[in-house]
Amino acid sequence: MIAEIIAAGSEMLTPFRQDTNSLYLTARLNELGVQVAFKTIVGDNFEHLTGAARIAISRADVVVFSGGLGPTEDDLTREAVGAAMGLKLRRDTEILTGMYKRFAARRMTMPQNNSRQADVLDGAEVLENANGSAPGQYIDTVVGRHRKIVILLPGPPNELKAMYEAECRPRLAATLPERHMARRMLRMALIPESQVDARTAPIYKEYTDVETTILAGHGEIQLHFVCAKASDEEAQARVDELAEKVEAEMGEAVFSSHGESLEEVVLLMLGLRHMSLASAESCTGGLLAQRLTAVPGSSRYFLGGAVVYADRLKTTFAEVPEEMVRTEGPVSEAVARAMAEGIRRKTGAAVGVGITGIAGPGPGAPGPDADKPIGLVYVAMSFAGEGKAKVVELNLTGDRERIRLWASQHGLEQLRRGLLERT
Amino acid sequence: MIAEIIAAGSEMLTPFRQDTNSLYLTARLNELGVQVAFKTIVGDNFEHLTGAARIAISRADVVVFSGGLGPTEDDLTREAVGAAMGLKLRRDTEILTGMYKRFAARRMTMPQNNSRQADVLDGAEVLENANGSAPGQYIDTVVGRHRKIVILLPGPPNELKAMYEAECRPRLAATLPERHMARRMLRMALIPESQVDARTAPIYKEYTDVETTILAGHGEIQLHFVCAKASDEEAQARVDELAEKVEAEMGEAVFSSHGESLEEVVLLMLGLRHMSLASAESCTGGLLAQRLTAVPGSSRYFLGGAVVYADRLKTTFAEVPEEMVRTEGPVSEAVARAMAEGIRRKTGAAVGVGITGIAGPGPGAPGPDADKPIGLVYVAMSFAGEGKAKVVELNLTGDRERIRLWASQHGLEQLRRGLLERT
Repeated sequence: MIAEIIAAGSEMLTPFRQDTNSLYLTARLNELGVQVAFKTIVGDNFEHLTGAARIAISRADVVVFSGGLGPTEDDLTREAVGAAMGLKLRRDTEILTGMYKRFAARRMTMPQNNSRQADVLDGAEVLENANGSAPGQYIDTVVGRHRKIVILLPGPPNELKAMYEAECRPRLAATLPERHMARRMLRMALIPESQVDARTAPIYKEYTDVETTILAGHGEIQLHFVCAKASDEEAQARVDELAEKVEAEMGEAVFSSHGESLEEVVLLMLGLRHMSLASAESCTGGLLAQRLTAVPGSSRYFLGGAVVYADRLKTTFAEVPEEMVRTEGPVSEAVARAMAEGIRRKTGAAVGVGITGIAGPGPGAPGPDADKPIGLVYVAMSFAGEGKAKVVELNLTGDRERIRLWASQHGLEQLRRGLLERT
Repeated sequence: MIAEIIAAGSEMLTPFRQDTNSLYLTARLNELGVQVAFKTIVGDNFEHLTGAARIAISRADVVVFSGGLGPTEDDLTREAVGAAMGLKLRRDTEILTGMYKRFAARRMTMPQNNSRQADVLDGAEVLENANGSAPGQYIDTVVGRHRKIVILLPGPPNELKAMYEAECRPRLAATLPERHMARRMLRMALIPESQVDARTAPIYKEYTDVETTILAGHGEIQLHFVCAKASDEEAQARVDELAEKVEAEMGEAVFSSHGESLEEVVLLMLGLRHMSLASAESCTGGLLAQRLTAVPGSSRYFLGGAVVYADRLKTTFAEVPEEMVRTEGPVSEAVARAMAEGIRRKTGAAVGVGITGIAGPGPGAPGPDADKPIGLVYVAMSFAGEGKAKVVELNLTGDRERIRLWASQHGLEQLRRGLLERT
């Protein structure tokens, strides 16, 4: 059983906009055991859309359209699907009456164009739109000797999602063979994808009934496991068994065994240890603090910190000796250590983290940093009552954005590893 | 002349990954006057990929593939295009020799599989890959009576982009009729899209030779103008004329008339006024600082600041009186004002900005904030030598992420408007 998702809309054929509904729809269809084999993006062009519809209906069992159900002349999905499937449109009086009522309630006259939204394909069920005016349509029919399910959904994500949940999922679930899927995700930071694959492939390849996907990006590796079985328990048991074996192989590199983000894990670990955290950031400019505070409830364990971009502020906010900044340079092991220790003392936190580096594209400031390379970053971590802060030197590559992101990622991963050692 | 972009790779048919290369390719093809009419995403499945290739070559003049050129069994683009076009593959000894040399230089043995990357379609030109091992291919041929250009590019964005620039753009430009395109983008913050459209549509609709696109999101409205003419000057004159009329209508709401980001504009304005800036953030948790420091060279005008998440730090870092936090609550006009003034004094900056609010999902802290609504945010701005800081009260809607983003957006927009008044 394979599906095709067709996103209709010329704006998604510009350099500025992407179809995102298909990610949501893919997740939902996968849950029902339907694999998405094709995604097509096509503009508001009757001929193109009709051609794409015809192809999709011939090569997929389930075809889901998003967009093109509005009232304007550019909204052509109804007509195109009709042409592709040889189905006529009839104007549904019930829908039309509802639309007139809604306009009347707002003391507005309904523009003539809007009545097109009441056009329904022969044999289609009308899907109610809880969040907008364009109804959806659901066709379950036989083309040639093949059963085809064709679904027309509106483009705005909130309308599409609500309509899928309320109207499509129950219909599809009743139609398709019962499926019980289980998922697990393991996450690792700052480890090469090739290493993860080399070490885990011998394990996951044994589980031919579990689909394993490795995704890498932004300093993180994700291992997704998906399994479908006759019961939820059976499926869960398989993904859990595989996840546990992979976790045993990768050990402490796995920061999350149920999908939590690195930020969430660090905050959770701080909570379990009744420790508070403060940060002093130079090259990351608040990125670490921003990532931590994006997590709801982070205020319980993250006190805050300082963005010490100007050298002077390293002294004001993180008690770094002025002399040290001058002689060692703001990007130095000594300054990173002083930042972590200083911000911890200044805020009374149990843990202080300090990050300083050269994010580029310009070189380090004149003075001791002038010849230090772009991508040189120091991450320091200071624990109350433990003496000198530990410092890690990094040599990161890439542009400013990547260096800042990876520096913050190293900051979080150092914290996690540091907390792990302090159970 | 229409194009189709085919992204090959099963990972892009999961709920986790999207094709992004097509945005880049669309911009580049548009520059040459080629409109993208279809985008197809297809998995690593020979039959599906061959079918998609056949359809694309029949309905588009230019077909660009991304992905599927690697050495593994899943990399099927070469074979599929060959099958779709009836072209044989030959193993190119020059490519093969190069590959052996690269492996030898790293003292490694080349895995047998890798030699597949040396397979070239009959009649194809080989496109050198400056950033990776998989070469691209370029086919300019006639199918039936129609000229077809078929391009095979590697999937990794850095490889694809470099190869397009160096190898494809010159070939396409030499083939296609000369086109001169000009673009302009106007950006506005925190203004409803409907208002922008109502005020600007009467203007841009007069310019039928300029394509206008309005995009809204993340507290920003973008107006894109694109025009193609016989010469660069003519095209530029048209988009400039339209942009100037729209800018005159929208006035100070336009923060950027050549595409600069709001952060860049604020930093530029600070620079022109020889002013420095510091921030004290509570609910945004470093997001404002992070956005400013993401801009290269920001250190010249942004000194840094404090993330004063814990109440105590509002006093330590921003000199907010403890008593005030207790009586007014951390989310109050008084505290926002004190944060802006305090961080300015403490850092010696010319401008201080303070942001405090309730980002949710939990309610305000017990005490004076307990009954304040989620989304209540205060943004304060203090200018040296001007007395009391100005405070704006916001009532934002949405989830934690949206409230934080909009709060930071308001912070930047307040700064811009404040700086505008101080020319």
